[in-house]
Amino acid sequence: MNDLREEVSVERRRELLAAALELADMCAATTASIVASGFDISKKADASLVTTADVETERTFRKCVEERFPDMGVLGEELGESNQGADFRWIIDPIDGTAEFARHLPVYGCIIGLHYKELPLLGVIDHQAMGIRCHGTYGLGAFANAERLHIQDSAPGEEGAGARVGLPSLSGFLRPTDASSVFRAIVDAYPSFRAYHTCYAHTLAATGGLDAAMEWDTPLWDLAATQILIEEAGGSFRWVKKTHIPGQGHLYSAVFGKPAVVKRMAKIIEDAL
Amino acid sequence: MNDLREEVSVERRRELLAAALELADMCAATTASIVASGFDISKKADASLVTTADVETERTFRKCVEERFPDMGVLGEELGESNQGADFRWIIDPIDGTAEFARHLPVYGCIIGLHYKELPLLGVIDHQAMGIRCHGTYGLGAFANAERLHIQDSAPGEEGAGARVGLPSLSGFLRPTDASSVFRAIVDAYPSFRAYHTCYAHTLAATGGLDAAMEWDTPLWDLAATQILIEEAGGSFRWVKKTHIPGQGHLYSAVFGKPAVVKRMAKIIEDAL
Repeated sequence: MNDLREEVSVERRRELLAAALELADMCAATTASIVASGFDISKKADASLVTTADVETERTFRKCVEERFPDMGVLGEELGESNQGADFRWIIDPIDGTAEFARHLPVYGCIIGLHYKELPLLGVIDHQAMGIRCHGTYGLGAFANAERLHIQDSAPGEEGAGARVGLPSLSGFLRPTDASSVFRAIVDAYPSFRAYHTCYAHTLAATGGLDAAMEWDTPLWDLAATQILIEEAGGSFRWVKKTHIPGQGHLYSAVFGKPAVVKRMAKIIEDAL
Repeated sequence: MNDLREEVSVERRRELLAAALELADMCAATTASIVASGFDISKKADASLVTTADVETERTFRKCVEERFPDMGVLGEELGESNQGADFRWIIDPIDGTAEFARHLPVYGCIIGLHYKELPLLGVIDHQAMGIRCHGTYGLGAFANAERLHIQDSAPGEEGAGARVGLPSLSGFLRPTDASSVFRAIVDAYPSFRAYHTCYAHTLAATGGLDAAMEWDTPLWDLAATQILIEEAGGSFRWVKKTHIPGQGHLYSAVFGKPAVVKRMAKIIEDAL
């Protein structure tokens, strides 16, 4: 048994996926009900935005997980960690792209991951306002709504400047340390980049809308669903950096999508650091 | 009578807007029917993409205009210009964001403008895949679907780095001449930029999803609807450069959105050139 995730039977994975999709439904319903009744927007300590929809959606999620899976852990963007050290850990970013959500752009998403012994077992990215839900489960494939996903690698020679990649904007490379050299190197290498600023770029990397995408110095919840989604779709996911920030925890950087593009991007990043 | 557009009566403008919306319906139906039956993608001389949907949609548009308004001119991205020098000139980009369209991203749009004596009389940006249609008509206001648009200016001090602006990616600044200095200056000034790469950024500048947006060295059809849409919504639209390329015609650069942000962006561009 090479992969610890094999300890979770296929049947159990199917049940957990069904539970994750029910949780995503519940999150979408909570967010939608708060949108309908109006929400408040405030700034967090790091100057990023949070709305009452973020907090209430995560609260609903945690309550459901605690009732249904009392032994499992939960790590969330808004309300911290519970049951630390449990084998199964749910990870949630209730609204990834709060700034877009607050301005009524549909490209935000709810990210739900379930990790087993620190390995990603399943992931859901739900763009409720766009009617697009992606999920991937270890050994069970990846899907966008009902469609099975198959990432095709770039043809030789097409992993270069002509490829279309999703990047964070420069602001994503300025904190906690200045990595603007990475931004500049990637932009020069992929001048036709897109910057959506949310997990919609992950969805596009999984579904072929982009050839690859990346995140830089981001908390785990932003990437909680992406690795398993991309890998189960047949793509490549590479961690390129992990940084520990005293008092704040870890920040992660990753590149994902078509294998040839990911390989080239990872090399450019390594050279620029 | 200061503005030549006053020569076109309010009633006539209303009729022309109704015609433009019918033309947009027809374009959307043509594009949708070609999507349903499958389309071919090829590269144009400038390496940008064109699909059979682009060409057929523009052909449908031109045929309707020629039947209904035989004295008016038509300028289109795919099929050139007819009735040059006519007072009324329709301008169409049948699918702005062909690369996104070809990859099934919903952020492409059909752009329709009607200019009178070279002044923009009305404009429509139709995102059929997103169900968002914006239009603005001289003296009659701007709308997103049924909602009247009102761009609110930034509060003092909020026109700076915290503002959210839509930019072309670097590739948009490399042709026909290298203006990457402009890209770098704007990115440094607005590190939280977005890069959607289509007229969806114009729609967002009109509807408040972005504080401002810009285009660089782009043909007239890409901006055919935007000036009147933004101005009728109460925003500011500034031409920042006009370049004549022998044998190709003119390329245009513009900044548009909240007045204070537009003013600051225009200054940054001027300083970077």
